[in-house]
Amino acid sequence: RINGDRLWDSLMDMAKIGPGIAGGNNRQTLTDSDAEGRNLFKKWCEDAGLTLGVDKMGTMFATRPGTDPDALPVYVGSHLDTQPTGGKYDGVLGVLGALEVVRTMNDLGIRTKHPVVVTNWTNEEGARFAPAMLASGVFAGAHSLDFAYNRRDPEGKLFGDELKRIGWVGDEEVGARKMHAYFEYHIEQGPILEAVNKQIGVVTHCQGLWWLEFTLTGKEAHTGSTPMNMRVNAGLAMSRILEMVQGVAMGEQPGAVGGVGQVFFSPNSRNVLPGKVVFTVDIRSPDKAKLDRMRAKIEAEAPKICDALGVGCSIEAIGHFEPVTFDEKLVTSVRSAADRLGYSHMNIISGAGHDACWAAKVAPATMVMCPCVGGLSHNEAEEISKEWATAGADVLFHAVVETAEI
Amino acid sequence: RINGDRLWDSLMDMAKIGPGIAGGNNRQTLTDSDAEGRNLFKKWCEDAGLTLGVDKMGTMFATRPGTDPDALPVYVGSHLDTQPTGGKYDGVLGVLGALEVVRTMNDLGIRTKHPVVVTNWTNEEGARFAPAMLASGVFAGAHSLDFAYNRRDPEGKLFGDELKRIGWVGDEEVGARKMHAYFEYHIEQGPILEAVNKQIGVVTHCQGLWWLEFTLTGKEAHTGSTPMNMRVNAGLAMSRILEMVQGVAMGEQPGAVGGVGQVFFSPNSRNVLPGKVVFTVDIRSPDKAKLDRMRAKIEAEAPKICDALGVGCSIEAIGHFEPVTFDEKLVTSVRSAADRLGYSHMNIISGAGHDACWAAKVAPATMVMCPCVGGLSHNEAEEISKEWATAGADVLFHAVVETAEI
Ligand SMILES: NC(=O)NCCC(=O)O
Ligand SMILES: NC(=O)NCCC(=O)O
Repeated sequence: RINGDRLWDSLMDMAKIGPGIAGGNNRQTLTDSDAEGRNLFKKWCEDAGLTLGVDKMGTMFATRPGTDPDALPVYVGSHLDTQPTGGKYDGVLGVLGALEVVRTMNDLGIRTKHPVVVTNWTNEEGARFAPAMLASGVFAGAHSLDFAYNRRDPEGKLFGDELKRIGWVGDEEVGARKMHAYFEYHIEQGPILEAVNKQIGVVTHCQGLWWLEFTLTGKEAHTGSTPMNMRVNAGLAMSRILEMVQGVAMGEQPGAVGGVGQVFFSPNSRNVLPGKVVFTVDIRSPDKAKLDRMRAKIEAEAPKICDALGVGCSIEAIGHFEPVTFDEKLVTSVRSAADRLGYSHMNIISGAGHDACWAAKVAPATMVMCPCVGGLSHNEAEEISKEWATAGADVLFHAVVETAEI
Repeated sequence: RINGDRLWDSLMDMAKIGPGIAGGNNRQTLTDSDAEGRNLFKKWCEDAGLTLGVDKMGTMFATRPGTDPDALPVYVGSHLDTQPTGGKYDGVLGVLGALEVVRTMNDLGIRTKHPVVVTNWTNEEGARFAPAMLASGVFAGAHSLDFAYNRRDPEGKLFGDELKRIGWVGDEEVGARKMHAYFEYHIEQGPILEAVNKQIGVVTHCQGLWWLEFTLTGKEAHTGSTPMNMRVNAGLAMSRILEMVQGVAMGEQPGAVGGVGQVFFSPNSRNVLPGKVVFTVDIRSPDKAKLDRMRAKIEAEAPKICDALGVGCSIEAIGHFEPVTFDEKLVTSVRSAADRLGYSHMNIISGAGHDACWAAKVAPATMVMCPCVGGLSHNEAEEISKEWATAGADVLFHAVVETAEI
């Protein structure tokens, strides 16, 4: 069993870096706080006797050697970056849970055939630079390094420049590492495990996603002196598209979601009808047919809505991953570990995207989940109990050690 | 007749200060550009022999003395501040048109019984600090100085601090000046004069306004892992309210408008359902019954829309003025001037709010309007011709001189 107190203390120490405004964290990727978090994690890795490698995306790989020089490593990780108003556990639990696994292996003097590599992927959240899971996406060959370096944050800063600025451009080619297996431990970020009172989610699938960025072009005009029939109202078109997206997602229930988290009006002045409205529709489903049907419906309906108002409509897919089926053998090892340890468990589909979804493209991969209070995540009030955190890390420990072979 | 070339050159010189990104201006109130614009205007006033007074709101009053020491001044002015993506004429034409009137009086050696005071009101646009027409509102007693000083821009900066920072806190008590009459010359900002090919709008009324600031409280949550039926979606509620406002305004046609120019999502991240959405509904009508009925309908419907989604809804009226009827005698002097000069004219209702609307509370007031291309304003592409600008300034000149009495 792992040391739940030590894991919890590390979680609380990391949470001190990049504090939020309501008890959570704002440690967005490639900020000074991200650099500070990386440095603390690096120190902890060194203290645990691990050897750090960094790739050109800034992803950190901290290796505990195996006994067989030819055996590929088992990778275990997640991300330390957060949403602007994020929680203390989303991602962090997976990185520090992995660190706790090797700390426990050290405590118990466990030697494995395969090395174990604790991993911190850069820019999983995609809050500052879209798309999410950027570094693991480059690792899996879904994006080029050049594409990643040229992502811009809302202030126009480039990912590549910011990675250099915080001093975390590594020398390893991205994706050069080969994996024996990849494990990721994460909070559920949804309500199911808590509702049915299960300690462990055995993650069999991850739903697929499209991020559709809309740019609506209206006519900037005075809100007072522009008659209703002369308006080219991009804000109204946006409203109708949001309602339409809601309808499309509701029409695919169960097993589909759709919504909008980000909207920019331009010039965003109270007495100016917006000349431009930019927003991103986020649609997901574990069922590829549903996912693609939702996209097709939205892309068919939105231009009609805009046409009726004279508003210009352009749509760019700025984020995508297909639904993922995790590796049967690794899934079984997680389930067996939970059984062995006496933790209640159930199969679950990940609602959120994770680096594991990209890792699954290049290696056998799976995930372990623990509940979170009220299913709440991407919220500073995100919460878990020490017991939940410990149970999941125990399961992770067993599955990793089994896969790395004593 | 005034000197149209000189007026146009001054307009073009002022437009060099705080240039926009598309040929217009971004000279928002209390910015460094605003200060620069004020200094140029001050210099021009001094060159014209005027004496400058400044009140505690930063409003500039440049006086050309009259012959009767007991006669109250005729005020003529508008504003030099612009929208973030504003035009070169909105407001500026009224201030520099007033300056052109006194320049012409100087040229012709005209002495009037009443002094003439060229006026530049602070923060007419309300883009940076709501409400619009803030300084004239304090002047007319609609707001306290304290209220004005405590207005915040989107970055949280205070009006009072910013006024001090740019060095334009004057020593005059706001509203201490008494007016014999107030004239304001402005572009129409709407399509009517151009459409019916009239050179001059004789402004008989100004429509009233409500700015209703909505704060919707949803539940910040993950866009992927939060099932549709667990969402408390403030963005969806906002969409429905925008559609409802559109319907309410359409239901009061003709003679009513309603729309939304400013929306803030929080935290505004693509994969986070917004915990908070703040936006401002702008409704206007020249008919007080319609205006108040629209407000009542919106305030009755919005909470129902929000309740159905579990979203919290608070509404604050952050801007208001009643419909205005301008002074019959001054309106007649404008109409007679247009007739005398041989300019085509028609009665018109101002769709936008103007400092004249507040001045009308404390003095006889009216406005002169000229057409603008396509009715476009609050847009960098706002355009007028030199001939239009000249005709309106000619009318202003005649009406002002008549009212100031030779
Ligand atoms: N786990 C997580 O919140 N990832 C962010 C990417 C996503 O939007 O699913
Ligand atoms: N004239 C003008 O655009 N004023 C701004 C205030 C308003 O929104 O009407």
